[in-house]
This record gives sequence, C-alpha cells and structure tokens, in this order.
Amino acid sequence: MRRTKIVEVLKSEETGKEFLVKGWVRTRRGNKQVSFIAMNDGSTIHNLQIVADVELFGEELLRRANTGASLAVVGELNQSQGTGQNVELLAKKIEVIGDCDVNEYPLQPKKHSLEFLREKAHLRFRTNTFSAIARVRHAMIFAVHSFFSLKGFVNIHTPIITSSDAEGAGEMFQVTTLNLDNIPKNDDGAIDFSKDFFGRPTNLTVSGQLEGELAAMGLADIYTFGPTFRAENSNTTRHLAEFWMIEPEMAFYDLNDNMDLAEEFLKYLIRYALDNCADDLNFLSNRLKEEEKNKKADEKSMELIEKLKFVLEDDFVRLTYTEAIEILRNSKPNKKGQFKYPIEGYGADLQSEHERYLVERHFKKPVILTDYPKEIKAFYMKLNEENKTVRAMDVLFPQIGEIIGGSQREENYDKLVARMEEMDIPVEEMWWYLETRKFGTVPHSGFGLGFERLMLFVTGMGNIRDVIPFPRTPKNAEF
Amino acid sequence: MRRTKIVEVLKSEETGKEFLVKGWVRTRRGNKQVSFIAMNDGSTIHNLQIVADVELFGEELLRRANTGASLAVVGELNQSQGTGQNVELLAKKIEVIGDCDVNEYPLQPKKHSLEFLREKAHLRFRTNTFSAIARVRHAMIFAVHSFFSLKGFVNIHTPIITSSDAEGAGEMFQVTTLNLDNIPKNDDGAIDFSKDFFGRPTNLTVSGQLEGELAAMGLADIYTFGPTFRAENSNTTRHLAEFWMIEPEMAFYDLNDNMDLAEEFLKYLIRYALDNCADDLNFLSNRLKEEEKNKKADEKSMELIEKLKFVLEDDFVRLTYTEAIEILRNSKPNKKGQFKYPIEGYGADLQSEHERYLVERHFKKPVILTDYPKEIKAFYMKLNEENKTVRAMDVLFPQIGEIIGGSQREENYDKLVARMEEMDIPVEEMWWYLETRKFGTVPHSGFGLGFERLMLFVTGMGNIRDVIPFPRTPKNAEF
Repeated sequence: MRRTKIVEVLKSEETGKEFLVKGWVRTRRGNKQVSFIAMNDGSTIHNLQIVADVELFGEELLRRANTGASLAVVGELNQSQGTGQNVELLAKKIEVIGDCDVNEYPLQPKKHSLEFLREKAHLRFRTNTFSAIARVRHAMIFAVHSFFSLKGFVNIHTPIITSSDAEGAGEMFQVTTLNLDNIPKNDDGAIDFSKDFFGRPTNLTVSGQLEGELAAMGLADIYTFGPTFRAENSNTTRHLAEFWMIEPEMAFYDLNDNMDLAEEFLKYLIRYALDNCADDLNFLSNRLKEEEKNKKADEKSMELIEKLKFVLEDDFVRLTYTEAIEILRNSKPNKKGQFKYPIEGYGADLQSEHERYLVERHFKKPVILTDYPKEIKAFYMKLNEENKTVRAMDVLFPQIGEIIGGSQREENYDKLVARMEEMDIPVEEMWWYLETRKFGTVPHSGFGLGFERLMLFVTGMGNIRDVIPFPRTPKNAEF
Repeated sequence: MRRTKIVEVLKSEETGKEFLVKGWVRTRRGNKQVSFIAMNDGSTIHNLQIVADVELFGEELLRRANTGASLAVVGELNQSQGTGQNVELLAKKIEVIGDCDVNEYPLQPKKHSLEFLREKAHLRFRTNTFSAIARVRHAMIFAVHSFFSLKGFVNIHTPIITSSDAEGAGEMFQVTTLNLDNIPKNDDGAIDFSKDFFGRPTNLTVSGQLEGELAAMGLADIYTFGPTFRAENSNTTRHLAEFWMIEPEMAFYDLNDNMDLAEEFLKYLIRYALDNCADDLNFLSNRLKEEEKNKKADEKSMELIEKLKFVLEDDFVRLTYTEAIEILRNSKPNKKGQFKYPIEGYGADLQSEHERYLVERHFKKPVILTDYPKEIKAFYMKLNEENKTVRAMDVLFPQIGEIIGGSQREENYDKLVARMEEMDIPVEEMWWYLETRKFGTVPHSGFGLGFERLMLFVTGMGNIRDVIPFPRTPKNAEF
C-alpha cells in the first residue's frame, strides 16, 4: 500500500476508503476506550486525527504513540465527529516506526518560546509555526523563479567567493586555505597570498549585482538568487550574517521601467502567497494576534492578511527623496519631536521610522522614493543632470520600511570612472566591470530584494532568525 | 513605442508591422547600397537581420553599427529574401546607443577558443555558445524547482557557513574575520577563535545533506539547491572549487523509492530541456560536431539530442556493485588490459572508465549501482544486514559516469554512533544530527546531483568551467 500525504487525506472525500499515512505524533489524548492521536507529516499545517480503539491496539502500543514518535497508520477515512476537522482516520493498523522518550524530547505538547526553538533549530521544523514558515518560504522561492521565467529572464549563479568588494557594502568574511597557525609571509613581512588557494585575498560576496550586470550586458534580462554575507557585528532582529538576495538586472531599462518591474514583482509574490498559502497564512495571522494580544491597540501590527492585501490594492506612490523630506520635515511627529532622528532637511539619511511614517500614516500606500543625494548612495548609480542626486529607488513597505533598493546604473564610462575615483573604488581591479561601459554600453537598471525581509513581511514574524532555517549571527554557527 | 524582444519578433507573422528592437551587433556586412546587420539581445540563439539603406542612414552611422555596438532600431517586419531566417527588419530608424571600438573589442566576428573566452567571462555572455548555455542553465534551474514543487517538496536553504564537516568530503575553505596579519592567540599559543565572528572555526559547506535531513525529519520531503565548496587543488575539466548541488531528502523513503525518484527526476529534467530548449540544443549539438569533426569516428561523442533521448527511452538498469564487479572483471577491456585501473574483484573503487563501460558498452542504458562496500562510502549510509555493504546508489550516465550519488541513511541511533566512532566522525559535535535518530526516527533517503555535471551532460560541453558563469578554480577568482 502506498503512503498518502496527510494534506491529500484531509482533502479526500472518499470516506470508507483505506489510507496509509506516516508521520509524527503531535499530541495524544483519550480515555480507556479510545485514543485520539494528532499526526502531522509536514505536508500541511493541519493534523490528521487518528482514532484508535484501545482494546484493539492495547495500552502498551498506544503509550508508545506519544508526542514525537513516528508512526505508520493504516485506517479508514471517516467523517469526523469532533470539531476542527472534516475527516479522521479510524485506525486498522498502527506501527510505531521510531519511539520518542517524552522525558528527553525537547518539544513538549505546549507552547515554546521562539527563543527556545532557535536553540532547537534541528527540531523546530516539527512545530506548526516553523513548518508553516518553511512552506511559505518554499512558495516564495518558487514564485520568484516563476515570475522571472514567465518574463524571459535568465537566472544567473553569480560567484560566492569573490576578490572584489561590490559596493564597499561593509565588513566581509575572508575565505582562505592558508594555515592560520602559520601564515606564510613575504620577505617584507606581508602575507604571501600567492600561497592561498586563489593566489590572492578572497572573501564572501556581499552582492551579485556587479556580475549580474555583466550578464545583463549580453542576455538583457537576468536575475540572481543566492546567498550573500555581511560580517557586521549586529545582534538585532533584522540582521543576519548570511542571507539570500534576489537581484534582477535589465539592459535597456530606465528608472521608471525599474520601478514598474519592482512593483509588479512584489505584487506577484504577495498574490502568490495569498493564492497558494492560505492555510499557513491563516495560522500565522492567528499566531501574531495571539503574540500581540496583550499589546495596546495602537501598538498592534496590522492583521497579516489585511497587510498583504494592502500592498495589492493600490498603485505604489512614487515621489522623489526631496519631496519626501519636505513631507517629513512638516509632519506632526517631526514638529512634535517624536522622531528619534529629527528631519532638518535635504541630505538626511532616512530611518525606518521615517519610511514607515510615509507609508503607514501619510500615504497609507506602499511608497517608492527616487533620486536620492549621491552622497548617501553607491558609486554605480546614475547621476542626474543636476549632478546632485542619483537615479536610486527604494520601495518602502508597512512594518518593515525599505524592502527593495535599486537604481539605474551609470552607463557612461567617463562619468563612472570619475565617480569611482571620487569614492575611492579601485578602478584597475574593476577593469571587467568598466569594459561593459566601453563596448556597446546601454542604459540599464536593477534592484535587490532581501529574501528574508520579504519573509518577515509575508509571515508577520518579528525576528529575522525565525524566517531562515539555520540563522548565522555573531557567535552563532551551530548546526 | 515599447521594445520587443528579438525572440518575439522572429516568431511574429505580422509582416508590415513596425517593431522597436534593442540589442548588440554581432556582424555587419553589405555593399554600397544596403547594410545587413545581425543583431542579438540574448533572448534567443538566432540573430535578427536588420536591413539598412545606406543612402537613408549614411555611411558614418552605419560604420558605427559595427560588431559589439548597441543599437535601438525601429523597422518594418518583412519576409526575408535571404536564407537562414524567415523574417527581417527593414530599418526606419537606427540609433547607436553605445559605440564599440572594433580595434579594442575582444570579441571579433570570428571563432574564439573556449580558453580565450574563459579569460573574457564578463563578455562571453554575448557569444552564441555562452548565451545558449546560460539559457539552458536557467531552464534546468527552473525545471528543478518545478519538479519538486509539483511533488510537494519544500526547498530548504541550508547554511553556507558551517562549523561541521558533513562527510569528511575533502579540503574545506576556512571562513574568518580574524586579522590574518595578527591572529589572536591563547596563552597556550593556540588560535583564539573566541575572537572570531562566530566564536569558533567555521568553513564553507561541502554539502547541505545533514541539515537537509533535519528538515526532512519534520517536513518529510525537502530539497536543497545551493552552492557547495571544495578546496581541492584539482585543475581538471571536471572540478570546480565552487559549484551548485541539488540534494533532496525524503522521510519514509527506502533505497528503492530513492532510485525511483532519482530516475524520474533526471528524466523530467532531460525532457524539459528537449521540450523547452530546442533551438539552443540544436546549436550546441552542431557546435559539438564542429569541435569534433577531426576526431576519428570511435572517438566522437554521441550526438547531443540522441544522447539526451537515450536517457529517456528505457528504464535505468539496476544492479548491485557486486554484480557490476563481476561484469567488469569478465569484460573484454579488463581481460585485454585496456582499463587504466584493472578490476581484480570486490572492493575496487569504480572509475569513470568502468562506469562508462557499463553504460555505453555493456547495458547501453543508464545504470544504477547499489549496495557498495561500506569501506568506500560515507558514515551515514545504512548498513545492510550482512554488515558488509551499505544502501548506497550511484546513477551512471553515458559520457560523464556518475551523475547522482545517494543512499538510504542509517536511522538506527546505536548503529549510526558505532559507524561514526569507527570512522572517527566527532560524535559530540553532531549531537543535533544524532537527536533526529533519538526522537521519532524514520527510514529516510536522499541523493545529490551536481548541477554542473548535469549541465555538462545536457549541453555537451567538455569543460566544467564553461557551464557556470564565473568558475572558481585553483588560482582563479577573477570577476
């Protein structure tokens, strides 16, 4: 008999039919006559209720079918008598595949804190919250690939180990095969990197953009989806040392095309989640309400499904950084001194509080800000004619602020070299990047979406460590 | 006017209609009256022929529209007079977006060696061969995700930076933020890893399997698709320091289920390529024929499309390692001393020549070998009852030999610990791996597919450096 996944059994209307299911016990309750075993196999947020006659199976066997144990059950599908499910399985055969000592098992049939479960990342896939997150994460991965495939984009695997620093984006992890106990040195005392695996210093990539641009200069529309790294000592709920990024790059796109694509992309992803992850999102919505039940009304998050729909309903508002600064400068919270970082005028780097004010209170819509001061943006962004701002864009969302950052790129060789020199970017090392501006250069644009930022938004989780299976943070590389 | 991709223009039957296309010039030829410009935008292997009236546009402009330059062209779709294409564009407007100095441009309108193009990895996307490979690579990525999504698998991003060595799979890259010029030491002279970012030695993952198993112990069916690393000093056509792996892991699967999935998976991928990449595969097939035209008949590769169909046509042959050794021992090449590594009997580690003999000459079908001697396989593979072989499986393909390696995993806690101790695997560090065998353990299986191996097979390319955009090999981390 072939095993049927629980998600299929629960959808089945063939009462009376026999099914073989395999999975793990979540809870067991009952009385002297009958045991009710809630079983889950990871295919759905819902458990399948197994109804077992105590006399038929014996108390000893049923005692082993406790929380955490793995079972194979053959049973007949019945309309459920209880509430909370439509169907249940009346057990004919029960086999305990793997026992579980309840005294040792860390996952008790009660609520555990997210902090505790982070220490048990090897087991937390067996909980409702983390299995729901894993399934939503998968759906979002697939939606990313589907969106770009439909549009004829080519997925490019940009290198993880690199000898270039894409944007001076911060501290990097070094990658080496040198013997750290005995680093080879040159006569002048400098490290002899000719002995290292790549014959030069290398590090983990902070972005695939620069290599992505190379590919776009031949294939036109490409995207990357891979891990990126920051060795920043930030122990916050929003930072990971290792996280996944999606970076599309499009030849012949100007900033407006770029904004159109970013908006269409985000809406596609959110709609995909709503269409394909309803059960998991409902569970996560309730989880969030439960978590925040003791918060004051004005401190509660927007309800999860409502928040997702909020993104779909309207066109995103588009305005320049300069316009946004004026709005913020004249805003009530600024005048009343409620911003932690008061806005005095042009040049300020926007903080999450400002971004959220614009989205949640001023416009009540997602917002795209453009044309930021060149001083606060990266070297590769295209300078506007006035030589003061660059064609950058940031997409701002409720709750999390910036979800996408992008720009039109500087395609003019001379201007790009001048900007690099101004900003101390090593021009010679980047010969390959510059050559794309020499040989048939074209206007092009792209953006980056931090995948875990998206996951925070879609799941309503508050800590980025909970939306990636095995988070890497300062002092933490377990598993 | 909106730009239309060249792949769409070439499919269009609306002759007389005007289109705007943008792309790069591959070649230009012509006479005093008319110029023929072959344009490509990366969306297809085929160029679009632009027909330009010399008098209308002037010689100066057309001279700039040379190889490598980027153009925007508005033109009317016409039935083509020439051979090699159905339609062409009669130019109405031509704008040179970016010039290209032919004296400096490395990609001349002639055949370049693959070696030369590897040095120009930033530009090789603009060549027929590498744009075809990039599109096929994308198709295979999407096919991987589609296959597993259809089957309800969950994609898991396993960690890239890890503190464990999955299988003692070989040399690893160290990841560190310690100052290599001044490594902090403890009083006893040992490196003080408490000062390192993660507070312990870390390295780049060699496999996501062990973490994948953790996820499968809750979600049942998962797969990974991410970069993996080997710091082996192997300068061959088959080794990369950084490559991408696909590793499904399935709870409740035994070795037979595992083989069924592997066969179904490979057939799905190959069929997807045949169904979706016909133009690129035809081009790559001709490229291979051209490359091998001076080889003797018995040294030529199988024709590419024929080779792909070869995989689809039959069930894969399944036999044990022990049976295969007998076949090899009695084979003609073994008796005639034609194997570089003669087969004397049980215990021999099979080489590519043996694998290819079984597939290409003995069975003339793909082959799955199972039940290898435990001595030549990893610690986590399930021991057979006879205590001599393990439930391993290798899928062997024509041309490349092993394309997939997998096994049923040892799910018995005591047996697993005993194997780890036998093989000097640190039991305490792997507490999290072992706990899955303690709490509701289940039989489970999985396998690994090296994505670039698959790409070699599907594209017919001979060097693994040519099927990944920016290869990482000893002494090479450029771009």
